[in-house]
Amino acid sequence: MIYLRNDYANGCIPEVLELLKEKNSAIYPVYGTDQETQKAKDLIRSKMPDCDVEIYFLPTTTASNTMMTRVALQSYEGVIACESARLHTREAGAIEFAGHKILTVEDSNGKLTPEAIEEKYNESVSKYDQMVIPKLAAISNPTELGTIYTKDELQALHDKCKELDLYLMMDGTRLANALVAPIDYTMNDLPKWLDMFSIGGTRSGLLFGEAVIIANKELDKGISLMCKQQGFLLEKGWIYGIQYQALFKEDAYYKIAMQENALNADLQTDLQKYGYPLYTRGFANMVFPMLTKEQMDYLAEYLDFEVWKKRDDFYICRIVIGFHITKEDVSKVSQLFAKAIGYEEKEIQTITTEEILNEDKENLQR
Amino acid sequence: MIYLRNDYANGCIPEVLELLKEKNSAIYPVYGTDQETQKAKDLIRSKMPDCDVEIYFLPTTTASNTMMTRVALQSYEGVIACESARLHTREAGAIEFAGHKILTVEDSNGKLTPEAIEEKYNESVSKYDQMVIPKLAAISNPTELGTIYTKDELQALHDKCKELDLYLMMDGTRLANALVAPIDYTMNDLPKWLDMFSIGGTRSGLLFGEAVIIANKELDKGISLMCKQQGFLLEKGWIYGIQYQALFKEDAYYKIAMQENALNADLQTDLQKYGYPLYTRGFANMVFPMLTKEQMDYLAEYLDFEVWKKRDDFYICRIVIGFHITKEDVSKVSQLFAKAIGYEEKEIQTITTEEILNEDKENLQR
Amino acid sequence: MIYLRNDYANGCIPEVLELLKEKNSAIYPVYGTDQETQKAKDLIRSKMPDCDVEIYFLPTTTASNTMMTRVALQSYEGVIACESARLHTREAGAIEFAGHKILTVEDSNGKLTPEAIEEKYNESVSKYDQMVIPKLAAISNPTELGTIYTKDELQALHDKCKELDLYLMMDGTRLANALVAPIDYTMNDLPKWLDMFSIGGTRSGLLFGEAVIIANKELDKGISLMCKQQGFLLEKGWIYGIQYQALFKEDAYYKIAMQENALNADLQTDLQKYGYPLYTRGFANMVFPMLTKEQMDYLAEYLDFEVWKKRDDFYICRIVIGFHITKEDVSKVSQLFAKAIGYEEKEIQTITTEEILNEDKENLQR
Amino acid sequence: MIYLRNDYANGCIPEVLELLKEKNSAIYPVYGTDQETQKAKDLIRSKMPDCDVEIYFLPTTTASNTMMTRVALQSYEGVIACESARLHTREAGAIEFAGHKILTVEDSNGKLTPEAIEEKYNESVSKYDQMVIPKLAAISNPTELGTIYTKDELQALHDKCKELDLYLMMDGTRLANALVAPIDYTMNDLPKWLDMFSIGGTRSGLLFGEAVIIANKELDKGISLMCKQQGFLLEKGWIYGIQYQALFKEDAYYKIAMQENALNADLQTDLQKYGYPLYTRGFANMVFPMLTKEQMDYLAEYLDFEVWKKRDDFYICRIVIGFHITKEDVSKVSQLFAKAIGYEEKEIQTITTEEILNEDKENLQR
Repeated sequence: MIYLRNDYANGCIPEVLELLKEKNSAIYPVYGTDQETQKAKDLIRSKMPDCDVEIYFLPTTTASNTMMTRVALQSYEGVIACESARLHTREAGAIEFAGHKILTVEDSNGKLTPEAIEEKYNESVSKYDQMVIPKLAAISNPTELGTIYTKDELQALHDKCKELDLYLMMDGTRLANALVAPIDYTMNDLPKWLDMFSIGGTRSGLLFGEAVIIANKELDKGISLMCKQQGFLLEKGWIYGIQYQALFKEDAYYKIAMQENALNADLQTDLQKYGYPLYTRGFANMVFPMLTKEQMDYLAEYLDFEVWKKRDDFYICRIVIGFHITKEDVSKVSQLFAKAIGYEEKEIQTITTEEILNEDKENLQR
Repeated sequence: MIYLRNDYANGCIPEVLELLKEKNSAIYPVYGTDQETQKAKDLIRSKMPDCDVEIYFLPTTTASNTMMTRVALQSYEGVIACESARLHTREAGAIEFAGHKILTVEDSNGKLTPEAIEEKYNESVSKYDQMVIPKLAAISNPTELGTIYTKDELQALHDKCKELDLYLMMDGTRLANALVAPIDYTMNDLPKWLDMFSIGGTRSGLLFGEAVIIANKELDKGISLMCKQQGFLLEKGWIYGIQYQALFKEDAYYKIAMQENALNADLQTDLQKYGYPLYTRGFANMVFPMLTKEQMDYLAEYLDFEVWKKRDDFYICRIVIGFHITKEDVSKVSQLFAKAIGYEEKEIQTITTEEILNEDKENLQR
Repeated sequence: MIYLRNDYANGCIPEVLELLKEKNSAIYPVYGTDQETQKAKDLIRSKMPDCDVEIYFLPTTTASNTMMTRVALQSYEGVIACESARLHTREAGAIEFAGHKILTVEDSNGKLTPEAIEEKYNESVSKYDQMVIPKLAAISNPTELGTIYTKDELQALHDKCKELDLYLMMDGTRLANALVAPIDYTMNDLPKWLDMFSIGGTRSGLLFGEAVIIANKELDKGISLMCKQQGFLLEKGWIYGIQYQALFKEDAYYKIAMQENALNADLQTDLQKYGYPLYTRGFANMVFPMLTKEQMDYLAEYLDFEVWKKRDDFYICRIVIGFHITKEDVSKVSQLFAKAIGYEEKEIQTITTEEILNEDKENLQR
Repeated sequence: MIYLRNDYANGCIPEVLELLKEKNSAIYPVYGTDQETQKAKDLIRSKMPDCDVEIYFLPTTTASNTMMTRVALQSYEGVIACESARLHTREAGAIEFAGHKILTVEDSNGKLTPEAIEEKYNESVSKYDQMVIPKLAAISNPTELGTIYTKDELQALHDKCKELDLYLMMDGTRLANALVAPIDYTMNDLPKWLDMFSIGGTRSGLLFGEAVIIANKELDKGISLMCKQQGFLLEKGWIYGIQYQALFKEDAYYKIAMQENALNADLQTDLQKYGYPLYTRGFANMVFPMLTKEQMDYLAEYLDFEVWKKRDDFYICRIVIGFHITKEDVSKVSQLFAKAIGYEEKEIQTITTEEILNEDKENLQR
């Protein structure tokens, strides 16, 4: 059974445990006021030399999304997000528990668009005193469908939000997988477009931990206290420092994502070659093949994956390539998929992986 | 300018002020523990002789919807409702402020269906520990589109909710307009299908006030205290008692709605006759004509109405017939609509109002 | 049985019903955007010519206290108040339901002092990231013990709050009874010292209603929307306008309080004369005699009053003089108290009511 | 500088890192559904063979206290706790953020008493519909003052709570230090008296983590979902399992506390011998000497400790003995205290440590 259900079923990268062991015997100022935490923040800041950002560490993605939302919103303000957004679908009502309404819009291939933001904004404003006021737009990058925002898209979202006086936040649960994809921006660009974003650690090889980056200093108010209030503030905050140092000092953060994306691209190419329709086509570490009941049942005997949703007669499935997945695993997965659809070698299409990737890059530009 | 924007811009029925004057000099036990409140509850209960219900009075529809939701839900549970539901669109995030998530589904002509409930339920349950658990389904009757649930539809919703262990609540902001429509049930039937519902007073001729009916006694816990906690508990609670007595002792509640529905039916028939497409066709006190920009601009000079939403080149408008609207008003409104579309008498369609109404009744049965 | 339990068991002043009747047949813009509401606000503003204030109407004291608290506080900030404050003891957890912590201090004869504020502030700040940050101090005037702040006390509270960067709010549930007491300030002075305060209507002869005065314009943000969100925004907002016009156009607001205070002073003087120890000595419309069990049992047969708390062998009772109480009522109440303690006419003390009042005035100045 | 400010400035016990390393390469079901978590729960359950308990793991003490409170309370119910309770003083308003009011009472040497519970309960119930209903009583063991509940005290609290239909929860942030003190009960007894309690890991040698024990099965509803909703549910839940295994498999949990308590007893004895008044006298790992300004200033040059509060001319200081503190540290600390007060060897009192401990034991029984 190969585990393809998500990318957080594995342990941490060895660097984390090594550094924890090395640093474990010291005495640390509590609640993240220590030097190891400071070092980690400096390391992260070194990836964004153009900007002056503040950094907070939180235990889970639910925690980081809740905190960013609380930071940006007054009690009578809401957040615009896609129907498919994690904070709407997979956070067990965390945002609502904190008292805020999510104003959902339809996504476009997993993405939030300036047009959708504007439409929702106008709708809310026209019913003033009846709807909460939108004050924040939230995106995920990669999206929940594994697609990745382009530079132009981020710029356009930023411009629209400025125009409408909205903050823009980005859920970076799997940000590494976006940053190593064929895009034309780096982490250093993000603070220019975003008021806040997270750099997920849990899915990038940590035991746990998400870093929240505050790029807009007017939002840097009361965060540490809110973290305490919500039970997020670890007494031994230095553990975050250690972990993020392990992640960034030798760029494990990027290397892991590169491995995942590459294996994912191989698998995605194979699946297309075999003739599987894909629900969406992304460049991160997730593939969404659409399977018949028979194909799904066959594959489920050997592979552990999630059924994303049912559409007509198809089961849209989600395959996630975590960093525990090897080249051999992917090869085996690919063979199983080939078998499930009755694909035979002789049918091999003439299109090569390179051609497909080039085609993808072109798509990405549009 | 004829005011068609809503049905709560007018004052109260004279009976309310008369009774207030008559009863104003007494001393009353506070917070609704008085005899006038008791009398009003008995009067309301007399409309539902088959059931044993508990009754609470609240100041606004936002208050009554929030309270019913809080009563039914634990902090980790959510409410299934239509995208178009008042508690989702027009309550300024009241449900979320109280900490609960609304799980929205698409409506079918304004209505929630058992199928939509089941689909949302299954989606939530399949992502256990990621989505709030649905524990309540909420409908409005009439719906926000002026459509009215049939007996069979209510029975089917009740059955589905029982099957899935959900409570079922009904926002009865304009319930009177449903009860006097061509339906085959009365207020006495409602407690059999619904765990809770409201009997709106504000839109039925009171100064203010909504009655919340608790039909399922297991939900009758802590309500009075929650009302105090949310600032809803009037010190001089007897004011509700007086008002609801005025509404029910001579059935003003029903008479007002009958007048509104009749005038509304006349106008709706005219508008169809003139050739206006209707966004939906209801039997309560709201018409939703779809207007061109030119028509809208012309009418807006003489009539005060709400633009519901824009669709393609049409402006879907909402005309509400409050009890301040007279036969003469409707006649004038009708003439203006005729003029706006260039309708001439000679074009009169052969279909009569009676035929249209018969056709409507047939539609209602389906 | 004479009702002395509180001052909101009676009906409204006749002016309210007369004006409601006169104005009932018009059509009004909804949610308080009408001219009657505007007129009422202008009338209230005319009592504070030196300041430019914003005004909102709310249904209950719980609503007005909650709203003022929400307006002033971020989610991680708290309000300093006396242990005896209404918002701590009698609001069923309204402030906490809205997510805020009340930081309580001991009162000094019902009053909050600058020293107590400073001590609590320092305690909170010294445990930064462990305690919510105080950002608001809340007083009641009259206090829950019927005592009244002097000009100097209000000035000192204002100065301390400015120093510590706290907002200062005043619960004016019974403000009229303070303003007609022997104090040396008027309503016009209040906005100079207070960022927000309420002018209670329910206990001053309205059917219901509290006016919230926003003196500090930086707090005037999102209030109307928050009111809608909490279910406080009446559809027919003009009802508040009518009521507050009735209260202020002929100064019924002050006349009622003068009558109550005068009767209360008479009774308080009598009770002291008879030898009852008083828990506190106020100048508003409440007396707090300390009774033995026998006295209490005897009086409870004829009088309906509240037992405030038990201390040692005494029952501290609260007698409230509402505007339904007549001179004859007070005379009867006085006789009963005389009888309960076995007081005989021949024992009459030489001190006169005037002397006592003069003495009180001196006390008040200190 | 010896760090005596708290017991969570140190790293974790080596067993934690060893086991993490050993188990790090596996693939685990997520959100705590794995076998390592199961093993840890079984190990903890083996310490309470007489009862059938459910166990949840949470990241911080704020998280565990919030969760226990939420589990027990409806939105209109409150928790009775001491003024000095951690959940009132040191959780940054976490309970209020979750919407609940803390009903505080004065503590008796840090402890909550049945009498205080009953008094607060009666006060709340007598003002029904004005105060939140108490439904939970919360204690800490050891208390915030380092005192420890006796068997009889726990039994009496349990009996009173049953009588008043309250749940009883215990904050066990430092429970180990209570269980190894001279008391006559073990962990196995706790579920008989308590509906819920926590077994703190952070202060007992883990990187982080608190175990919440649900002894009353009627409270075991929706907890996992609430944990997700509040951002507490770690994706890689097995990390808790590993850590709690490390803590309990060789009883490190108890051994660490024994070392801390023993060193603490030595220091406390010395301080008394030197003539320092103690604010309270406990048997756990905290001493509360009352220092003059001069003594405090002198000691603060060498020791890092917390000033608990100021009383008259004394500074009540809190010394905490974490497991990083050695016998040599304590000896040095003791010498500094001796010097600060000018204590000389020849003054040695005749009373021995054993005599003091015996005396303490007698005190404990009372």
